[in-house]
Amino acid sequence: MSAGFERIAIVGLGLLGGSVALAARERGLARRVVAAGRRPAPLEAALRRGVVDAVLPLAEVARDAELLLLATPVGAMPQALRGAAGALAPGALVTDVGSVKGRLAETLPGLLPAGVAYVGSHPMAGSHLRGAEHACSDLFEGAACVLTPTPESDPEAVARLRAFWSGLGARVVLRDPARHDAEVAWVSHVPHVLAFAFARALGSAPSSAGGLRGAGFRDFTRIARSDAEIWSEILAENAKALGAPLERVAARLAELARAATAGDREAIERFLAASREDMQRFEAPSGGENPEIQSQGDGKNHS
Amino acid sequence: MSAGFERIAIVGLGLLGGSVALAARERGLARRVVAAGRRPAPLEAALRRGVVDAVLPLAEVARDAELLLLATPVGAMPQALRGAAGALAPGALVTDVGSVKGRLAETLPGLLPAGVAYVGSHPMAGSHLRGAEHACSDLFEGAACVLTPTPESDPEAVARLRAFWSGLGARVVLRDPARHDAEVAWVSHVPHVLAFAFARALGSAPSSAGGLRGAGFRDFTRIARSDAEIWSEILAENAKALGAPLERVAARLAELARAATAGDREAIERFLAASREDMQRFEAPSGGENPEIQSQGDGKNHS
Repeated sequence: MSAGFERIAIVGLGLLGGSVALAARERGLARRVVAAGRRPAPLEAALRRGVVDAVLPLAEVARDAELLLLATPVGAMPQALRGAAGALAPGALVTDVGSVKGRLAETLPGLLPAGVAYVGSHPMAGSHLRGAEHACSDLFEGAACVLTPTPESDPEAVARLRAFWSGLGARVVLRDPARHDAEVAWVSHVPHVLAFAFARALGSAPSSAGGLRGAGFRDFTRIARSDAEIWSEILAENAKALGAPLERVAARLAELARAATAGDREAIERFLAASREDMQRFEAPSGGENPEIQSQGDGKNHS
Repeated sequence: MSAGFERIAIVGLGLLGGSVALAARERGLARRVVAAGRRPAPLEAALRRGVVDAVLPLAEVARDAELLLLATPVGAMPQALRGAAGALAPGALVTDVGSVKGRLAETLPGLLPAGVAYVGSHPMAGSHLRGAEHACSDLFEGAACVLTPTPESDPEAVARLRAFWSGLGARVVLRDPARHDAEVAWVSHVPHVLAFAFARALGSAPSSAGGLRGAGFRDFTRIARSDAEIWSEILAENAKALGAPLERVAARLAELARAATAGDREAIERFLAASREDMQRFEAPSGGENPEIQSQGDGKNHS
């Protein structure tokens, strides 16, 4: 199975789209990469820098493309696909880089011409920086990339996409869309919510406390520097999956806060010892290394 | 003013005590470093590795020492000082590396012989590793070190201690003890509480979600790997100062969780934009760079 494509079309040339373009060409996984997008200036800048070979109107970008990659914000993806789908030829493959998969899995397949396959991708790479000007060809090196096929997905399309992301350096794992959304809520969205809430609470801190911050503070708050527009969309989109883990975290926080503000050292120590065990279990290699699709029903209690 | 001491005595040779010993000798800030401690094995190992020049009984460790550094857990410090104080000569200086200062400032000065000065120190350096075997001579390089003098403190002792920590590479800031405790609650203890609570909640996550974790998860949870024994003591000791910030964080978390689980994108985006401003204000260089002592009354609203 060849891991590459003759021609890749990308809609939305930000950090992720630009990095796929750079990485695919540098690693010989694309002969030609073309792009479309809403705003002309960053596209032209990327063209000048050689990130892509051509910039085309949306309606033409997918012509002759073997792979169409949607790399706009999640909410704009259906609209982007509607605009680009007319030029797709049978045998082409469509994917996206959206952070939330349930709604895309329901919407995007219905927008495809006959003979075109869709499989969702979520490369879990990024940074608090935005834009193709920060794109780099090793962004996906060592990062997880979740593919979200459904029972209707074409197995050959899944295999091709898997080989492509592996070729870009990613560690590919498979999840069904709902399970993906439940799992990223835990490993990514809830930590972001906690970091944003803490950053907001700092508005009530004495300003001179900033002079005491160190490496622990910096690492803990790094994700609170993420883009407000992108993250408000992600959190809103994954609202359903966020409910249970956020409730769980708030309950645990209340429990530890009670023990801490009571100065109950033994209760605190029991909590901290249990939290270490919980995290070690969560990070044990048995979890998530299974290359098979994991669906909602086969895991532990979600609540 | 010389930044160094002829002879430094350290009680408690863990990561911090061991790192002070290594750094002070390497930088010519101590001619001789001696140590006492509860358990003989790590002391002897440190002696063999050349971290200290001699290991002595607690009652003798402070003899001829110009500086006595208490580097045991906070709760053991009064007992350690009681055991060592008899050998202190007039003109000696006592400090400690405790993470919570209010109670030490009330207790330790009363245990000193006449003519011996006490000024608290809190080097905000560390790691999730424990023990003198992880000590390193550049642990304090670039880290904040808070000195916590009171109106009763000898200004010359403060200046000597300041020069010493600066000589070890630390950025010295001054706070009165209560203010120190309020500020470290915000920049260090509350983030730890949040990280521990999140780690504990992971016990309810589907175990396969672990396969999707990336760099953001790793940075956010790093402080949850901190030692349970040390941190249960720190949190219990600073119970009073933790109440207000923990309440504030819980309220902000509830606010963002409501918006997120309702899928209210506009409310989420308003919150995220405000949280970015709060953090930028908190990290602005005006806060905390003031080298004067800052006391409880001169800051912003603490609640």
